[in-house]
Amino acid sequence: AATFRASEHQHIRYNPLQDEWVLVSAHRMKRPWQGQVEPQLLKTVPRHDPLNPLCPGATRANGEVNPHYDGTFLFDNDFPALQPDAPDPGPSDHPLFRAEAARGVCKVMCFHPWSDVTLPLMSVPEIRAVIDAWASVTEELGAQYPWVQIFENKGAMMGCSNPHPHCQVWASSFLPDIAQREERSQQTYHSQHGKPLLLEYGHQELLRKERLVLTSEHWIVLVPFWAVWPFQTLLLPRRHVRRLPELNPAERDDLASIMKKLLTKYDNLFETSFPYSMGWHGAPTGLKTGATCDHWQLHAHYYPPLLRSATVRKFMVGYEMLAQAQRDLTPEQAAERLRALPEVHYCLAQK
Amino acid sequence: AATFRASEHQHIRYNPLQDEWVLVSAHRMKRPWQGQVEPQLLKTVPRHDPLNPLCPGATRANGEVNPHYDGTFLFDNDFPALQPDAPDPGPSDHPLFRAEAARGVCKVMCFHPWSDVTLPLMSVPEIRAVIDAWASVTEELGAQYPWVQIFENKGAMMGCSNPHPHCQVWASSFLPDIAQREERSQQTYHSQHGKPLLLEYGHQELLRKERLVLTSEHWIVLVPFWAVWPFQTLLLPRRHVRRLPELNPAERDDLASIMKKLLTKYDNLFETSFPYSMGWHGAPTGLKTGATCDHWQLHAHYYPPLLRSATVRKFMVGYEMLAQAQRDLTPEQAAERLRALPEVHYCLAQK
Ligand SMILES: O=P(O)(O)O[C@H]1O[C@H](CO)[C@@H](O)[C@H](O)[C@H]1O
Ligand SMILES: O=P(O)(O)O[C@H]1O[C@H](CO)[C@@H](O)[C@H](O)[C@H]1O
Repeated sequence: AATFRASEHQHIRYNPLQDEWVLVSAHRMKRPWQGQVEPQLLKTVPRHDPLNPLCPGATRANGEVNPHYDGTFLFDNDFPALQPDAPDPGPSDHPLFRAEAARGVCKVMCFHPWSDVTLPLMSVPEIRAVIDAWASVTEELGAQYPWVQIFENKGAMMGCSNPHPHCQVWASSFLPDIAQREERSQQTYHSQHGKPLLLEYGHQELLRKERLVLTSEHWIVLVPFWAVWPFQTLLLPRRHVRRLPELNPAERDDLASIMKKLLTKYDNLFETSFPYSMGWHGAPTGLKTGATCDHWQLHAHYYPPLLRSATVRKFMVGYEMLAQAQRDLTPEQAAERLRALPEVHYCLAQK
Repeated sequence: AATFRASEHQHIRYNPLQDEWVLVSAHRMKRPWQGQVEPQLLKTVPRHDPLNPLCPGATRANGEVNPHYDGTFLFDNDFPALQPDAPDPGPSDHPLFRAEAARGVCKVMCFHPWSDVTLPLMSVPEIRAVIDAWASVTEELGAQYPWVQIFENKGAMMGCSNPHPHCQVWASSFLPDIAQREERSQQTYHSQHGKPLLLEYGHQELLRKERLVLTSEHWIVLVPFWAVWPFQTLLLPRRHVRRLPELNPAERDDLASIMKKLLTKYDNLFETSFPYSMGWHGAPTGLKTGATCDHWQLHAHYYPPLLRSATVRKFMVGYEMLAQAQRDLTPEQAAERLRALPEVHYCLAQK
């Protein structure tokens, strides 16, 4: 029998954080592609567009006028999926028909007054300001809500409807599905092994090295062993940190710098403004803020869809929607490619 | 306090089949859309293209020549994600690094010799031939493998790389993730309530009526209470049937006819060839074929991405990838719209 080699032999891997399996079939990279190619929308974005509701001084859908902000700017989403007051659907009359109340708020956070920049093109102090704003909004909304989800959809391919650099913050009265799974897995691991799952995982990856992308004094970026998206990464603090507001100034500065490096590598991979969805997961808040959440380790997930070029993406469709996630290159191969890329942005490099 | 109305008040709903929650925020349909619009690729597909590897008589990537088939045609995928022989990754050295062997086969099934038709434009006897082929391939591959996943990715938006009407069949040596969840949920429900979850669910929906799309002598199509995709549907037999091969001739004819009606309604919704991923789930096969699988009810899931028009889709991104699925119209509203649509295809209707 042949010796197993992950880059040649299909296999399945387990995601202990979200309790899921992925099928890894690296040999599939050889197949030709005749499918959908995304239109390259390299239309230049104007730095300021008075009609763009995210710009300083612009009027939003609800008639409010944005201030002439010069750093980050946080405001209420004009079309929120979660509102603070919605009546309770009441008790269910059958176990197969269960609905529950959902309350919350949705906010939008602009990263910068200019529409023509993205995080990797911003300076480290400017990114640090975004991190501080993330920590504050977690604290503010976390006082009331058990879950504050910060996420960024970047690029039209990721359903982002506005090129202005921004993220969203949705706080909810319930623990969302994926938060529940991470809660359960980390809780179980902690009670069985006496240490936080992701802290141990980070240590192991530092020893094994093959999936590391970047390391700094306080942070690690790696392609997780169980990654689903081709160039998915996980960003972890080295220290045991449960929530964003706990990060100290040195850790925040260092985070700004490692984020800039990671996002620069992403853009350099296919020489395009790399689309992705990213988001932060930390221990639940609200009434749980005081509770022991020692099983939790703060982390950010980056889920970028591109597979082969700026226009050819991975589709999570048929088999993935109906059976199991499947990937076409190994996490180790993805990490190696990301590691090899320069830390200077291709738009700024002298040709 | 206001009275709860699902079409106005956000709430969360539970999917007892896959053990997941969805956030329903119907009021979001009011928001304007400035985001990505899909290019309308209404380029006419030639009926026969000798260079298309799915056409009768064409040469495939591996050098094989397709027969001049005139019904359905099943062959091995030239770029399979699963191959019959892959070595075992061996035991794990750490609980956070778990990999297991994966073996299987991937096949492609053409539905029709012509590239310019789709299922709703095929005749009922032609669709019946597809159903028979699905039953046979389940039986054939199910003799060896515990899971045979039949799925169709339709449309470029769903990563389909070839317009010729076809589906795929991936059989695996393992129960894929979603199969495992459905196995667990149906098993638990059966042991607690003494009846199959989906049989009871179908009965309930026939009584409640508000989510029904189509009913026939042997089948039901409905928008599930917990639907995630805007116009997602679930296709269920009325009788307790565990796997496709068990369907009798009358049930197969009736299935062909209800599938044609459903897919015609889908195409009529936005007057476009409606993209989707669909697939069949039945009781596990292989060594389990003989075992009691009375908790299982055969069903097909349809997951179409379109939300507002032929070019504006729902994106399952940021919040959905990081927290929880979210939908923008209620399942009841979706069912009502689908019910109201004609059963004659817009391409065939006399104007
Ligand atoms: O039909 P293809 O070209 O094999 O590939 C398509 O379906 C597969 C199974 O759902 C997915 O893994 C691919 O991402 C998708 O592009
Ligand atoms: O940024 P928007 O326009 O609110 O919307 C985008 O992000 C939301 C949260 O991930 C998704 O539900 C939408 O499908 C997506 O288009």
